[in-house]
Amino acid sequence: MIFSAQIKVMPLKNLLDPQGKAVMGGLANLGITGINDVRIGKQINLVIEASNEMQAKEKADEAAKKLLANAVMEMYEIEISK
Amino acid sequence: MIFSAQIKVMPLKNLLDPQGKAVMGGLANLGITGINDVRIGKQINLVIEASNEMQAKEKADEAAKKLLANAVMEMYEIEISK
Repeated sequence: MIFSAQIKVMPLKNLLDPQGKAVMGGLANLGITGINDVRIGKQINLVIEASNEMQAKEKADEAAKKLLANAVMEMYEIEISK
Repeated sequence: MIFSAQIKVMPLKNLLDPQGKAVMGGLANLGITGINDVRIGKQINLVIEASNEMQAKEKADEAAKKLLANAVMEMYEIEISK
């Protein structure tokens, strides 16, 4: 069966996000006001072939742990759909 | 009022995603099998001060159009929450 996994990787809350800060400055320069904070992460969509949803989730989790997210600086969330 | 906007920016379906292709190769090298496709985009979280949800959505949309997404190569989705 084919599953779709959406993995969201965001910088940890306690860490500075320099890319987000730069975008916040950019938005202010463009005249877009009222933006109090910006944080930027990655969105990774996988198409996974697995025999069931649990196995698909395990594969996505392994991929996130081993390659996609750096646990020291980032947290991730996985959502599986058919 | 304070709203949170989650903006997902993904490469358009018809375009190649070289970063995704590279990650797909990396996953195969790590021995993670059964991954048929990888696409990588950005996840941007904004904290917006606005008088109502519609205004918050408008600000997020303006930010996405003017700075965060490149309409030629990317599509975006916005989700607003309190």
